[in-house]
Amino acid sequence: MRALSRKNESLRKIELLAGVNKFADGSCLVSFGDTRVLCTATIETKVPMFLKHSGTGWVTAEYAMLPASCQTRIEREVVKGHQSGRSLEIQRLIGRSLRAVVDLEKMGERQIIVDCDVLQADGGTRTASITGGFIALYQAMQKLQNKYKLPELPINDYVAAVSCGIVNGTPMLDLDFDEDSNAETDSNFVMTGSGGIVEIQGTAEKVPFTENEFLKLLSMARTGTIELIQLQKKVVNSLNPKSEEE
Amino acid sequence: MRALSRKNESLRKIELLAGVNKFADGSCLVSFGDTRVLCTATIETKVPMFLKHSGTGWVTAEYAMLPASCQTRIEREVVKGHQSGRSLEIQRLIGRSLRAVVDLEKMGERQIIVDCDVLQADGGTRTASITGGFIALYQAMQKLQNKYKLPELPINDYVAAVSCGIVNGTPMLDLDFDEDSNAETDSNFVMTGSGGIVEIQGTAEKVPFTENEFLKLLSMARTGTIELIQLQKKVVNSLNPKSEEE
Amino acid sequence: MRALSRKNESLRKIELLAGVNKFADGSCLVSFGDTRVLCTATIETKVPMFLKHSGTGWVTAEYAMLPASCQTRIEREVVKGHQSGRSLEIQRLIGRSLRAVVDLEKMGERQIIVDCDVLQADGGTRTASITGGFIALYQAMQKLQNKYKLPELPINDYVAAVSCGIVNGTPMLDLDFDEDSNAETDSNFVMTGSGGIVEIQGTAEKVPFTENEFLKLLSMARTGTIELIQLQKKVVNSLNPKSEEE
Amino acid sequence: MRALSRKNESLRKIELLAGVNKFADGSCLVSFGDTRVLCTATIETKVPMFLKHSGTGWVTAEYAMLPASCQTRIEREVVKGHQSGRSLEIQRLIGRSLRAVVDLEKMGERQIIVDCDVLQADGGTRTASITGGFIALYQAMQKLQNKYKLPELPINDYVAAVSCGIVNGTPMLDLDFDEDSNAETDSNFVMTGSGGIVEIQGTAEKVPFTENEFLKLLSMARTGTIELIQLQKKVVNSLNPKSEEE
Amino acid sequence: MRALSRKNESLRKIELLAGVNKFADGSCLVSFGDTRVLCTATIETKVPMFLKHSGTGWVTAEYAMLPASCQTRIEREVVKGHQSGRSLEIQRLIGRSLRAVVDLEKMGERQIIVDCDVLQADGGTRTASITGGFIALYQAMQKLQNKYKLPELPINDYVAAVSCGIVNGTPMLDLDFDEDSNAETDSNFVMTGSGGIVEIQGTAEKVPFTENEFLKLLSMARTGTIELIQLQKKVVNSLNPKSEEE
Amino acid sequence: MRALSRKNESLRKIELLAGVNKFADGSCLVSFGDTRVLCTATIETKVPMFLKHSGTGWVTAEYAMLPASCQTRIEREVVKGHQSGRSLEIQRLIGRSLRAVVDLEKMGERQIIVDCDVLQADGGTRTASITGGFIALYQAMQKLQNKYKLPELPINDYVAAVSCGIVNGTPMLDLDFDEDSNAETDSNFVMTGSGGIVEIQGTAEKVPFTENEFLKLLSMARTGTIELIQLQKKVVNSLNPKSEEE
Repeated sequence: MRALSRKNESLRKIELLAGVNKFADGSCLVSFGDTRVLCTATIETKVPMFLKHSGTGWVTAEYAMLPASCQTRIEREVVKGHQSGRSLEIQRLIGRSLRAVVDLEKMGERQIIVDCDVLQADGGTRTASITGGFIALYQAMQKLQNKYKLPELPINDYVAAVSCGIVNGTPMLDLDFDEDSNAETDSNFVMTGSGGIVEIQGTAEKVPFTENEFLKLLSMARTGTIELIQLQKKVVNSLNPKSEEE
Repeated sequence: MRALSRKNESLRKIELLAGVNKFADGSCLVSFGDTRVLCTATIETKVPMFLKHSGTGWVTAEYAMLPASCQTRIEREVVKGHQSGRSLEIQRLIGRSLRAVVDLEKMGERQIIVDCDVLQADGGTRTASITGGFIALYQAMQKLQNKYKLPELPINDYVAAVSCGIVNGTPMLDLDFDEDSNAETDSNFVMTGSGGIVEIQGTAEKVPFTENEFLKLLSMARTGTIELIQLQKKVVNSLNPKSEEE
Repeated sequence: MRALSRKNESLRKIELLAGVNKFADGSCLVSFGDTRVLCTATIETKVPMFLKHSGTGWVTAEYAMLPASCQTRIEREVVKGHQSGRSLEIQRLIGRSLRAVVDLEKMGERQIIVDCDVLQADGGTRTASITGGFIALYQAMQKLQNKYKLPELPINDYVAAVSCGIVNGTPMLDLDFDEDSNAETDSNFVMTGSGGIVEIQGTAEKVPFTENEFLKLLSMARTGTIELIQLQKKVVNSLNPKSEEE
Repeated sequence: MRALSRKNESLRKIELLAGVNKFADGSCLVSFGDTRVLCTATIETKVPMFLKHSGTGWVTAEYAMLPASCQTRIEREVVKGHQSGRSLEIQRLIGRSLRAVVDLEKMGERQIIVDCDVLQADGGTRTASITGGFIALYQAMQKLQNKYKLPELPINDYVAAVSCGIVNGTPMLDLDFDEDSNAETDSNFVMTGSGGIVEIQGTAEKVPFTENEFLKLLSMARTGTIELIQLQKKVVNSLNPKSEEE
Repeated sequence: MRALSRKNESLRKIELLAGVNKFADGSCLVSFGDTRVLCTATIETKVPMFLKHSGTGWVTAEYAMLPASCQTRIEREVVKGHQSGRSLEIQRLIGRSLRAVVDLEKMGERQIIVDCDVLQADGGTRTASITGGFIALYQAMQKLQNKYKLPELPINDYVAAVSCGIVNGTPMLDLDFDEDSNAETDSNFVMTGSGGIVEIQGTAEKVPFTENEFLKLLSMARTGTIELIQLQKKVVNSLNPKSEEE
Repeated sequence: MRALSRKNESLRKIELLAGVNKFADGSCLVSFGDTRVLCTATIETKVPMFLKHSGTGWVTAEYAMLPASCQTRIEREVVKGHQSGRSLEIQRLIGRSLRAVVDLEKMGERQIIVDCDVLQADGGTRTASITGGFIALYQAMQKLQNKYKLPELPINDYVAAVSCGIVNGTPMLDLDFDEDSNAETDSNFVMTGSGGIVEIQGTAEKVPFTENEFLKLLSMARTGTIELIQLQKKVVNSLNPKSEEE
């Protein structure tokens, strides 16, 4: 039995609280059960070197866990002097996923940084970061549009992510930390509002998996991301772009 | 006039929410107005090198600001590869201040790390960290006492901190970011429940200050810390040590 | 048309030269067309911290590109002081993939490090590293078995990897650098000799992809890895374990 | 009894040797008893980023201890790869203290760096650095004035610093290393020639201190800094600005 | 007896394979017996800071050993975060040696980087790097001349290097790893085609050496470098400059 | 003409002041003209990893320049996060040179670190460091002998070093900074009291040099080091080993 009698194909309780930060250009406190990530988006007027004088914008992400977010305290990455491979891998995934639904040319030569700081980690922090990061990004894009009088919002679809895995032979949606630790196969899926796939990652943790098993996970992820995107739509509808102006 | 018609000798709205984190051994979300710091305390069974085989414990602190906590986004310290001088200075102050009310020998050879992560910064983050960090530390000490059957709680007093400054010639208590930016003199005071002084820092930002001006700031700080410690006492009284057990 | 009139479902010319290094415990110079990776395996008698006193061994990998391996010279990572996110991501993938076919317990408390140094990079360096790294690892395992009189070789299957992508709407196997730069979707598959899947990575570079497109890539990857594993088998059969002894 | 029968309210033997370095723009070898710091000042024609195109100058300081300056050899900070929190804290204090008596606008867009390298450390290295650093800075300012034909010397007061502490219940001025190691309260005061206070730092090392105790330390510091500034005046009067020209 | 019955004044088997890398502007795989170094040269259109707007070019070198190149695996330098003193010393020597035969002014404001990556290390890697690096540099200079229509090739002599040492009292040329480990005196000589000396390094490893001993080593080195330069001349003659054009 | 009418084969004014540091186990302030290096020696009871449980000691050196020691201020190495190649090369040379006259086995399992900190740099800092470092080391060895009741002093000869160069075609001894900057050939020689050679380094800065030129430099160096060692002998004779005891 899963915690709280959850069904195998059910998400945990999802919350998306937009506008929780006073100074950021966009923000969202996202919860997937006990996993809680503070996503904030900041507009900058400079772009990475390779885009200078291109007229095109950029969206990037950074990811970190607070030291006491886990069951065992983790050392701050600054103490070791560099980000771990895991953090770099996750923030590259978040950035790619968000850029998949952004029209970078419409942004003009500006950058939005989406910071995903994990306050509490109970599995699925990267998928929560993408799902909540989209809301923070959306808010910042509204502010960008207002401030620079852009003809259109530079976002062309929704994007959300969810994990699936095979635990003791059973495919399950949205694994919590304990399930994830026991999974034979662990996977993450990033999908858009119009049904396209942005990213698939599947990893055999203990034994290789079969094509059929993988297709079951893909199907569960489809159900999960549809539900997540419906929640995103509600939040987006409630955002009053006027309130973003300073 | 100060924001929200605050009087010169008044604190901002103070909130101390204990137990906000599922995995930490103690936690407190502290607000001084719009300044918000998440303080978490973790018990470790190892101590720093210089205390090995001494039978004595240690309390230390770490301090960091989330990138979007400020009016202008600040780069993560891990990106530069090391903590800034300001962060190191602040976390050393927090650690010293908390140790001033701890009986390290009563802890046994264990360490408590108090992490202070600034979610939103509107002035006074170091004083909020000390004030809220005390609550997180207190909770962790209760857990330590229960877990290791310590005869007494290794805490012997309350400790809180507040900033004062001279802004346009006027002494003021608990400066917000705008006041702090305009202050001629900036100071921080750390005091205990029994009235002792743990730390005094006074800095002339623009013009040197006089002894009389300094004494006025000291007197205001006395009033402020008394009020903060009353709030701490309420929170401490509401903590049920039983609930800390696993 | 692909370079050298290659068919969409064909691999480039593959070469696996075992035993090219005098001092390593195992080695393989692998070529996928113009991509050339020198894989070497080293036996160490210490294991990572988390395995101390467990009696269990470990296999890990490191990956780097020589500065002039690419069309544009890349700076050495040591000059920046840390490995890039890309390098860390790739070496974590190589390590996971190789461990999927290793029986770590049979190794005893020893570690094998597989170094994958890219001499020339023309696309698919991570998949070449896994495919050639397996041969270097195999040789080192034979040496380990001889040296420590292990009852069995601690390897239980073959493992190989290949990339696939959608280029101008056409699914293609084993992309070279130019194809990879133009791909709409880029993916990597790691599979075993008995047909299990170890890792799937699919990324939309420009537009999201559909489930059907993904299934076509998966099917191509199946064909490619079967062929790669046949080549591995030939090399393994030619290895005379006696020659590994010092 | 204090070493060398010193009275509680007496300084150690103070020496300020100006012009000891052939290549620096200003220099002073300062001794507070056995504490010896080599202070050198260098003029640069570039300013920190935040002052570019402001027409305003800057004064900053760097502080380090030679490895064998202490009773126990300390590792070079470059070996650990970063400055310690203590070093950063001290050099920030020295820089703030010196800037308190400089008219940055009169400097034009130039910077003076004051390097304080501790040759021998017997307590009070930060206060010796400020006191001697002022002389090095003064010399460099004379050179700056001559070289760039500034209408006025950009210095508007003297500045000196001294430590005080409570040792075994007794307030004492200018602690040496042994006294400092045993102090219950440790404090540093930075004051100007016209009697203003630039910086106050008071720290309870073992037990909190009272307001009355603190006022006694403040009064002793007043006496000490007046004496130090008289010595600075003698040195300044002996400096022949002509000799600074190349 | 030396390995393979080599005479004391004989080189090991030397091989210089030019053009082994598809993407570099020049390349040479050099072997001194079992020592194998991959030298690649890259043309860049930027020069170091101190040469900006000078119209003059630069030649520099970088040196590294692959982890499994030695009898005992060596950790990648990026893992420690910085290059070792040994690597820096060697790459500075290679750069100086190559610049000694280059007319930097004739290059125009361009830089050539010569990367020397040791694939297998059996003694003499620095002398092999210089000898092989010259070939890679020569090829790149031909390409530079063609591309920028330089009136002359900016190379004015050959340069090669060899080690000598005193092993058990006997002077020997071109030490392999075992000989080097047992040498009382170890030396390296860099000489030009016209007989000039570019660099001499002699180090007593166990006991100081005499002037006479040193002169014997110098004489052996003369013989060795003459032979190496004859091999370089053969390779250079075989290079068809037309083939360097893109 | 050389500065101060010095002859080509003459040293600058040399000073060796022993015992200048209160806390170090040995110390020497050495001057070669305007070059001034503070050498201090520290005894440690731990040895490097590779000597643990060998019963053998070690001597090592560290070298650094103070920021304002040069004509142009140089950045502290800690600011860049690592030592420069030049510093590492020099400190490796100093360590090797000093070890050449030490009987490491007689030291027992202890280490002496010789720190060479350049206060003022006018050419020849590495040769001054070796010459002065020997005195600091000698003092520390006397202390080591006394403290651990060693039967003999673990030093078996004197060692000193000097630079020579060819400046405008003329061979010269002990170059100052200006001469060094203009030299065609630059060399350093380390020699012992009994006439052995410990290290020879000769570098062509502009044009290759001939064997005859090099022999002239070697001969000058011989004269110079004999004179330096005579000065060392005077200092050593004046050291009263009793005064080293604590």
